[in-house]
Amino acid sequence: MSTQKSQQMLVAVVGVGLVGSEFVNQLLSIPAESSPFRLISLSSSSRTVFFEPANAILSPEKWKTILSTSNEKPDYETLTRKLSGFINPSTKVAIVDNTSSDEIASLYPQWLKAGFNVITPNKKAYSGDLGLYEQIVRASKESGARFLNESTVGAGLPVISTLKELVATGDKVKKIEGVFSGTMSYIFNEFSTCSPDGPSFSSVVSVAREKGYTEPHPADDLNGFDVARKLTILSRTIGSSSLPSLQSFASVKTTSLIPPALEGIPTGDEFLKRLPEFDEEFDKMRKDASKEGKVLRFVGVVDGVKGEVKAGLEKYPTSHPFATSLGGSDNIIMFHTERYSPRPLIIQGAGAGAAVTAMGVLGDLLKLV
Amino acid sequence: MSTQKSQQMLVAVVGVGLVGSEFVNQLLSIPAESSPFRLISLSSSSRTVFFEPANAILSPEKWKTILSTSNEKPDYETLTRKLSGFINPSTKVAIVDNTSSDEIASLYPQWLKAGFNVITPNKKAYSGDLGLYEQIVRASKESGARFLNESTVGAGLPVISTLKELVATGDKVKKIEGVFSGTMSYIFNEFSTCSPDGPSFSSVVSVAREKGYTEPHPADDLNGFDVARKLTILSRTIGSSSLPSLQSFASVKTTSLIPPALEGIPTGDEFLKRLPEFDEEFDKMRKDASKEGKVLRFVGVVDGVKGEVKAGLEKYPTSHPFATSLGGSDNIIMFHTERYSPRPLIIQGAGAGAAVTAMGVLGDLLKLV
Ligand SMILES: NC(=O)c1ccc[n+]([C@@H]2O[C@H](COP(=O)([O-])OP(=O)(O)OC[C@H]3O[C@@H](n4cnc5c(N)ncnc54)[C@H](OP(=O)(O)O)[C@@H]3O)[C@@H](O)[C@H]2O)c1
Ligand SMILES: NC(=O)c1ccc[n+]([C@@H]2O[C@H](COP(=O)([O-])OP(=O)(O)OC[C@H]3O[C@@H](n4cnc5c(N)ncnc54)[C@H](OP(=O)(O)O)[C@@H]3O)[C@@H](O)[C@H]2O)c1
Repeated sequence: MSTQKSQQMLVAVVGVGLVGSEFVNQLLSIPAESSPFRLISLSSSSRTVFFEPANAILSPEKWKTILSTSNEKPDYETLTRKLSGFINPSTKVAIVDNTSSDEIASLYPQWLKAGFNVITPNKKAYSGDLGLYEQIVRASKESGARFLNESTVGAGLPVISTLKELVATGDKVKKIEGVFSGTMSYIFNEFSTCSPDGPSFSSVVSVAREKGYTEPHPADDLNGFDVARKLTILSRTIGSSSLPSLQSFASVKTTSLIPPALEGIPTGDEFLKRLPEFDEEFDKMRKDASKEGKVLRFVGVVDGVKGEVKAGLEKYPTSHPFATSLGGSDNIIMFHTERYSPRPLIIQGAGAGAAVTAMGVLGDLLKLV
Repeated sequence: MSTQKSQQMLVAVVGVGLVGSEFVNQLLSIPAESSPFRLISLSSSSRTVFFEPANAILSPEKWKTILSTSNEKPDYETLTRKLSGFINPSTKVAIVDNTSSDEIASLYPQWLKAGFNVITPNKKAYSGDLGLYEQIVRASKESGARFLNESTVGAGLPVISTLKELVATGDKVKKIEGVFSGTMSYIFNEFSTCSPDGPSFSSVVSVAREKGYTEPHPADDLNGFDVARKLTILSRTIGSSSLPSLQSFASVKTTSLIPPALEGIPTGDEFLKRLPEFDEEFDKMRKDASKEGKVLRFVGVVDGVKGEVKAGLEKYPTSHPFATSLGGSDNIIMFHTERYSPRPLIIQGAGAGAAVTAMGVLGDLLKLV
């Protein structure tokens, strides 16, 4: 018989912003009687709380107050030591990192070595320096503790788990191609439709920013780095020798949409004020695409055949799913594999938002029990 | 630290037809050094083999001969007794049912009670009599052994796992709507395009049969039962009180495509000979849809809002993903949920075929280690 039922999983959450708060709420909405999880620690950048498993946090109503009235500062050495003391054959530990912090990401290897499972929507570690990535993989292999990061690509969409299953069962990934940024999706779904005309590029970016779809500084989206990070994660997850070994996401061939003259402009406001100077350029690209019966989309490609990982603007026929099926700020991801051939496996839907991202994080946690 | 690394999973495979053979090949292609799986038993309807774990089957080249030269007849009582003897804290057991047998399906409760995990692409149990379904759920709860059936809907596409995650993390499923039958997908993708005309219904069905897309007797596809079974599985997986409690797949409101006059015709050949008598009827439906700017698709719907589960022919605008994005014999499934709203989560791709189905089965097995 399985020993599952008597096992418990102690959970420490680091980062309770948009995604973190929603994650805690979803976690605590699992009825305590049937939940294997015990939420015993919460940390923001300035405060932390820690409870013994017997006094675990249960209330979706009170956890915010409990944290905000704490006077303790986060101290990850102490947290690591305390959590280590609890591990035994029937008690596992998971740390859930809901920050976008490089500092927290750098702690994963030591947490994994200590036998803590690490779950995160934070792209920094897996898309950053190759050294850190390799340490994570090694630490996880050695201790058997797992590193799960479903929400780093496509948020709650089953992208990473699907890719892992394809690889683990022996399929060969020929090409992954997709619209991986909700922001870029929205911008080009609005800017480039079947018609050769439409709103100016700068006006679309402005509206996207007003709606909260872009970062405060739109250049942080238009540089394509977010897509490059996601491609790095996918490429490393495939781990094929026919793909380039990426030193970091900066090794991805990324074609930024920031006009060179606007590089380095410090504020979003100033950036948006000057962006109209380049509307004509973008309009010409749209017209050229339209002449070929195509639309513009900012896509990411991991090409196992050509051995190439790249992010940039591409043209797609108006009958292509990237043109016909996309809307809003949806992500769409196509897996072309040996088995899914000639027609790809496609996953589509919201690729951002606190609720769906937190769902992906909680889904990872559920995989551990 | 996790104890995962020292655990082994003994695997007994029942049914080595198209999917079963491919499953065994995929399983044995995992390098033995790093595989937690030990394949110790194989059964067809007429033969069986059993080995001690130390002598587990390893060779992708030889297993077929090993089984075909065995003189033992399958005996599931003996198999159950032998497997039970191996279970201990570091040894788990999984039975993989790759048959479409009702008899094998009826053994699941006893296997689950014995602590064996059960994995299957066989729809019979979960879509059959409510009593058997409830026994399966109860037995799995009691022993902690798991019942996994990803490949019963959409084959290797991540349909069941995605649905389970939505439900487990607290999302509310408003509606699942999809093209769940590869055969029906092919037939209507060919029969009903944007144009009001096209090939006759009977000719499309004939070609589909020649290509091996239909059962030998096409009425076994056109009755819609396969879709009704899949909807029953989805509906039970949601387990919501706002859905009807289905006594079996026969409780699904299914609109068969078999013309009443052709019900009960014993052979596929005879059926196809008479089908042209009804071409005019199907042609009229296509023309009527086309007048509204729509196409015909045979879809399944699980509607949590209306509390309805139904399968039948529906009309969709030519701009709808069921019209624009579908091709070949692809499945497409849309999840409309509280979180994935107003735009659904969409999964699309081949929903049949030995390689992708076996992948879903092996993927389930990998979830257990
Ligand atoms: N939002 C989405 O749709 C989405 C989608 C996919 C992935 N993600 C990823 O999910 C993560 C969280 O996103 P979010 O939208 O929730 O961001 P957010 O609202 O900015 O929340 C991040 C939180 O992390 C906390 N934090 C930063 N450094 C910390 C530290 N050293 N120790 C403890 N807490 C620290 C911050 O706490 P303070 O408030 O105290 O500063 C902040 O509340 C990011 O990695 C993001 O890329 C988000
Ligand atoms: N093929 C697909 O694309 C697909 C997709 C999704 C789901 N599935 C499901 O996967 C299952 C297998 O499909 P398939 O295409 O592989 O069918 P198949 O080729 O007909 O194979 C079924 C095998 O089951 C064996 N069998 C029947 N009764 C048995 C018993 N009592 N004990 C042991 N073996 C028994 C048969 O063995 P003998 O040869 O000795 O008679 C046969 O080889 C079915 O439930 C099907 O619905 C298939």
